[in-house]
Amino acid sequence: MTDLRALVLVCTLKPSPADSSSSLLGTQVLRELEQHGVTGEVVRVVDHQVRFGVSTDEGDGDEWPQLREKMLASDILVIAAPIWLGQPSSVCKMVLERLDAELSETDDEGRMLTYGKVAAIAVVGNEDGAHHVAAECQQALNEVGFSLPASGVTYWVGEALGSTDYQDVTPAPEQTTSMTKTVAANTAHLARVLKESGYPAV
Amino acid sequence: MTDLRALVLVCTLKPSPADSSSSLLGTQVLRELEQHGVTGEVVRVVDHQVRFGVSTDEGDGDEWPQLREKMLASDILVIAAPIWLGQPSSVCKMVLERLDAELSETDDEGRMLTYGKVAAIAVVGNEDGAHHVAAECQQALNEVGFSLPASGVTYWVGEALGSTDYQDVTPAPEQTTSMTKTVAANTAHLARVLKESGYPAV
Amino acid sequence: MTDLRALVLVCTLKPSPADSSSSLLGTQVLRELEQHGVTGEVVRVVDHQVRFGVSTDEGDGDEWPQLREKMLASDILVIAAPIWLGQPSSVCKMVLERLDAELSETDDEGRMLTYGKVAAIAVVGNEDGAHHVAAECQQALNEVGFSLPASGVTYWVGEALGSTDYQDVTPAPEQTTSMTKTVAANTAHLARVLKESGYPAV
Amino acid sequence: MTDLRALVLVCTLKPSPADSSSSLLGTQVLRELEQHGVTGEVVRVVDHQVRFGVSTDEGDGDEWPQLREKMLASDILVIAAPIWLGQPSSVCKMVLERLDAELSETDDEGRMLTYGKVAAIAVVGNEDGAHHVAAECQQALNEVGFSLPASGVTYWVGEALGSTDYQDVTPAPEQTTSMTKTVAANTAHLARVLKESGYPAV
Repeated sequence: MTDLRALVLVCTLKPSPADSSSSLLGTQVLRELEQHGVTGEVVRVVDHQVRFGVSTDEGDGDEWPQLREKMLASDILVIAAPIWLGQPSSVCKMVLERLDAELSETDDEGRMLTYGKVAAIAVVGNEDGAHHVAAECQQALNEVGFSLPASGVTYWVGEALGSTDYQDVTPAPEQTTSMTKTVAANTAHLARVLKESGYPAV
Repeated sequence: MTDLRALVLVCTLKPSPADSSSSLLGTQVLRELEQHGVTGEVVRVVDHQVRFGVSTDEGDGDEWPQLREKMLASDILVIAAPIWLGQPSSVCKMVLERLDAELSETDDEGRMLTYGKVAAIAVVGNEDGAHHVAAECQQALNEVGFSLPASGVTYWVGEALGSTDYQDVTPAPEQTTSMTKTVAANTAHLARVLKESGYPAV
Repeated sequence: MTDLRALVLVCTLKPSPADSSSSLLGTQVLRELEQHGVTGEVVRVVDHQVRFGVSTDEGDGDEWPQLREKMLASDILVIAAPIWLGQPSSVCKMVLERLDAELSETDDEGRMLTYGKVAAIAVVGNEDGAHHVAAECQQALNEVGFSLPASGVTYWVGEALGSTDYQDVTPAPEQTTSMTKTVAANTAHLARVLKESGYPAV
Repeated sequence: MTDLRALVLVCTLKPSPADSSSSLLGTQVLRELEQHGVTGEVVRVVDHQVRFGVSTDEGDGDEWPQLREKMLASDILVIAAPIWLGQPSSVCKMVLERLDAELSETDDEGRMLTYGKVAAIAVVGNEDGAHHVAAECQQALNEVGFSLPASGVTYWVGEALGSTDYQDVTPAPEQTTSMTKTVAANTAHLARVLKESGYPAV
């Protein structure tokens, strides 16, 4: 059964083809989702001309509308974010701000178009900040209509003040690999049950 | 159909019988949940001898085990928290720390006992801080196994540096009342579908 | 005595000439600083081509180096930030990320070039989030070398779920006006004493 | 010259004589402060009957008033806090809430009694969360009147999902040791210049 679609938005500050640990972890989440009947794609946000703003389309060559179409066509949204100064990247915040527009995009029953969609979070940094990045993403995504599965975050960070990148850790950290599997299983499950049985109108 | 149970943990700093805005908003969430086939109770945490700690039972007259029994018997956990200095109350943090113990309380398949349970958040303050309190609670509760329904937060705060309490606002703020209804409907729905179809073992 | 310089970085998402509440509050902080012997300027970040990144110069037409020159020539940095989803704007995070580069920009004694400089924060939103935005800015700016004066934040937000802009509130909220005066007095004082007596080498 | 006093409030959840990593790091900060003419003491908050509340004295055997006396007699306050779920401990939040009372404790000129005092932060956890704990503490302490020196945080955390305690890391992590020295030097310097030249009345 391949009945679910996922979109992974990678929020690194670096355009392709630069290596990116958040791209790697985001891709690993997608690989695990595929074990549960999900297909999808990974998009690096800074490779697109996304404008600052809080509307669905900021005009002036804004490429958010194309990313938004992919999001609306998906059942699952994965935010893959790097940590800077212990906080989510600016690119991640730009994505959350664009999703703020969904508060006004509702169906005839007043439900956001995001209702029924499920969000999962992947966070990487050299050191410290994963819980806080997850908190910022989870609160914002929940506010704009996404549901969150049990244990919906996977992450890796090194020891305090370290400088190793996730993509250079070998072998891959077992604990993170295990979390990624759990996130994928729980995310796919929640997306499937919500697809079968959507939120009622209030 | 009355098939679901809810526990509302009120995290005010003030023991009964002092008036409490967080108790009021938490109770209002329960009233709305009752419209969706949920029964439950409201517990003010500081009326009980809950110890600081991160285990399921800290001994020495610790009354968390009784509250934990109620939590385990419930499908829905509502955290009703006041804001101090723009942050969640210490009592709220004490509750989250006690729930940290659930990370090690798993079934034969390695799933936390909280899996399948749904959490909702109610926040009140004189002014400012609701989003951040929600973020702290949502991240922590999600980490310890709770699922979060779409738009799972209701709140009220006044204008910057204001000093009015939610319980003294008349008439009740319409926007908060409307959010409370949505939170209740979505929380009950998610709890019901997860009760019918629990997370699989990974 | 006009012996101190200030730079106000306005982190609204909207380019000039759009009205901006964060620009208004940032400008009010500068007006009050002028009462204490400070001269300076207000810069709206999105009017400049600032690139995403964590270096002092990202190349490719990056205009951060010019803003950085102004920062280095100032004794005081004021971050004026709007709130979105209860969190600092992406433009604000972009500025903090660029300042992350200062961790490696040190003098012969190993002190950051920002040592001795003082940061103040101005936050506005329709509703909720000022404390959290302040926390994010204060932690990040402190990490990259700025000192923070007592009561170094001024802010305005409206009641929960409100939609009024600070710039449309008349008369100006007295409490915010008073906080702005305090922030300016304390910021100028701290900048002056640190200019006279800089941090020693460790 | 031994002209400054410091109070270190250790916010571990565990009463003495249990070992505590936050007590260790807090004590190390005091040792380094002593190199800069500071004397002081380390107090473990949970060894005292501190009540939940936001006043200077909650009555009923509340022992905060004694701790508050020590704080008022000090030029420097160090908060040493453990991380739980990526967030500050409940005991730390309880201390911040008690300090909230200082907003109303002002001199004849309207200045808080905390004005001129300097706060430093020490954070430890098995893994992840130091920046966020620092942010929470710094925002709250700044709001209630404390000034913050450049680079005013020292911390240690291990790799993602690790379980090693700071007190068991041997040899002591060099980077944390170095940060602790910097925090002490900058904190003592700022406290000394503010003691000589206090904030003016507004």
